[in-house]
Amino acid sequence: MSTRIGIIGYGNLGRGVECAVAAADDMELVAVFTRRDPATVKIQTAGVSVCSVADVEQWKDKIDVMVLCGGSATDLPVQTPQFAQMFNVIDSFDTHARIPEHFAAVDAAAKASNHIAIISVGWDPGMFSLNRVYANAILPDGKDYTFWGKGVSQGHSDAIRRIAGVKNAKQYTVPVEKALEEVRSGSNPELTTRQKHTRECFVVLEEGADAAAVEKEIKEMPNYFADYDTTVHFISEEELEKNHSGLAHGGFVIRTGKTGMNKEHNHVIEYSLKLDSNPEFTTSVLIAYARAAHRLAKEGQTGCKTVLDIAPAYLSEKSGEELRASLL
Amino acid sequence: MSTRIGIIGYGNLGRGVECAVAAADDMELVAVFTRRDPATVKIQTAGVSVCSVADVEQWKDKIDVMVLCGGSATDLPVQTPQFAQMFNVIDSFDTHARIPEHFAAVDAAAKASNHIAIISVGWDPGMFSLNRVYANAILPDGKDYTFWGKGVSQGHSDAIRRIAGVKNAKQYTVPVEKALEEVRSGSNPELTTRQKHTRECFVVLEEGADAAAVEKEIKEMPNYFADYDTTVHFISEEELEKNHSGLAHGGFVIRTGKTGMNKEHNHVIEYSLKLDSNPEFTTSVLIAYARAAHRLAKEGQTGCKTVLDIAPAYLSEKSGEELRASLL
Repeated sequence: MSTRIGIIGYGNLGRGVECAVAAADDMELVAVFTRRDPATVKIQTAGVSVCSVADVEQWKDKIDVMVLCGGSATDLPVQTPQFAQMFNVIDSFDTHARIPEHFAAVDAAAKASNHIAIISVGWDPGMFSLNRVYANAILPDGKDYTFWGKGVSQGHSDAIRRIAGVKNAKQYTVPVEKALEEVRSGSNPELTTRQKHTRECFVVLEEGADAAAVEKEIKEMPNYFADYDTTVHFISEEELEKNHSGLAHGGFVIRTGKTGMNKEHNHVIEYSLKLDSNPEFTTSVLIAYARAAHRLAKEGQTGCKTVLDIAPAYLSEKSGEELRASLL
Repeated sequence: MSTRIGIIGYGNLGRGVECAVAAADDMELVAVFTRRDPATVKIQTAGVSVCSVADVEQWKDKIDVMVLCGGSATDLPVQTPQFAQMFNVIDSFDTHARIPEHFAAVDAAAKASNHIAIISVGWDPGMFSLNRVYANAILPDGKDYTFWGKGVSQGHSDAIRRIAGVKNAKQYTVPVEKALEEVRSGSNPELTTRQKHTRECFVVLEEGADAAAVEKEIKEMPNYFADYDTTVHFISEEELEKNHSGLAHGGFVIRTGKTGMNKEHNHVIEYSLKLDSNPEFTTSVLIAYARAAHRLAKEGQTGCKTVLDIAPAYLSEKSGEELRASLL
């Protein structure tokens, strides 16, 4: 029996879930819920209902796993505990520092209503977290490195857009190749923020804006840019649209560590992603964990989980026997 | 309370387990069991008993997890089911094609005696398998590639040593850089055996042996070398000892796949290992899973598991709360 999927929130992530469900043989998209007027939301899958999120409770027995596609800043802290009272849920909450409180709120709601919730699913947090945990367990005497990019940082792009005189902007986070090579060499370098990533900004100015003043304000912005080598390019709106509207991203998780009675052997574990579409990859991970959520629910498990709490076999359509014969 | 570890078999893997236990704060090595006369086996850890494997049953209540360090060809198929009757056990059984039957035999023994067994732990099978399963679940529309090396293949070295006129030999499996680059480009190439790896042989001849005949026999050997571009170097025993006695290894697991309603986005997931010591890395993985085995046993779980059946959090010394706060 296929897993019946619902989507709450139809932006980039919602559309990505729709694609990932279409690509999975054992999944079926049942309904998309929106805060907008449903009549104004056009989705890509024929025959699937678009409904008001206000009516979601009517779907309680028709959806196995609800995928929450809201933002981490204000949507998910409210929505995940709320909808965990009615559904098995999964989200991509990615504010690392607030994961413990989000976990606690979702766990309480899911346990009280006998549902499964899986939070912080995606690639970081998500696949990168998994790789950090595996590598730390294997090489206790070592050092972790995470590099992001090349890819657009939404937060940094937004920060530039708030500057007076800026009409539009995109900011790329770029890992420093030399730092990556140093890490891979096993030399365990201590790297500063500046040594690990550079920031590259593409900015469209309002007419008459002072380019030099904008560039200075970007480069000196605390937290966002001051600690980085930052490059600013002023371009036209057309050029921004044409060359910088992609959603590519990626990154690297590397752990280097030593073994041996005299710590004489070095090892490098590296995991990397190169993604044409950040939201579509994220939602591909979400759908793999939606499969796990449905299985865990059928086993009678309840409460909040993360990717760290779920055995890999739960993500695969294949049975244990098939996995052992083909992929182990 | 720390996990009390026993070792059966004291070769490269046994010594590696000893190092990995010494590096783990929550592990304690209790005894090493050998088929040799225990008086002749000198281990690296002070105060630890070396015993005859014939006496292993006396240790039933003193060891939480027994790590089996025998070979996959003849030792483990017998030993793992046998010792699973007395202990929680873990092995690195690596004959991929025979995993299903090994699993069945170990599962029956472990269930009958209420023990936990984890088989085929290491890097391939092991960490590479995990990465194949995760990447397949995330990108169902894609293609898997596994490359091994640069590292010594014991089986191929042995095959050369069996040739008349060969005194000693080491054979390196080397991934072809061009093939790796093609795979990473996302072009989903169909690669032949010859295109993926080359084989490099360092051979010491017996006095008076015919070098040309030996080289021909190596290069034309079916299964082992005939399908590869093979290079043969004749060197002295001293040079072999000096330059080719290392145990370095490594490899790459790459999956490329597409997402999007029109399959318009490419993604590359890559996991790689660069290891100075193949046995010490393998045993570092074994010890992380020994931690998991002890926890599963304390939960009352029984039967045979593989790395695919075990949630990542079980491998870490840290609690769920600590992991969510620091590594998620």
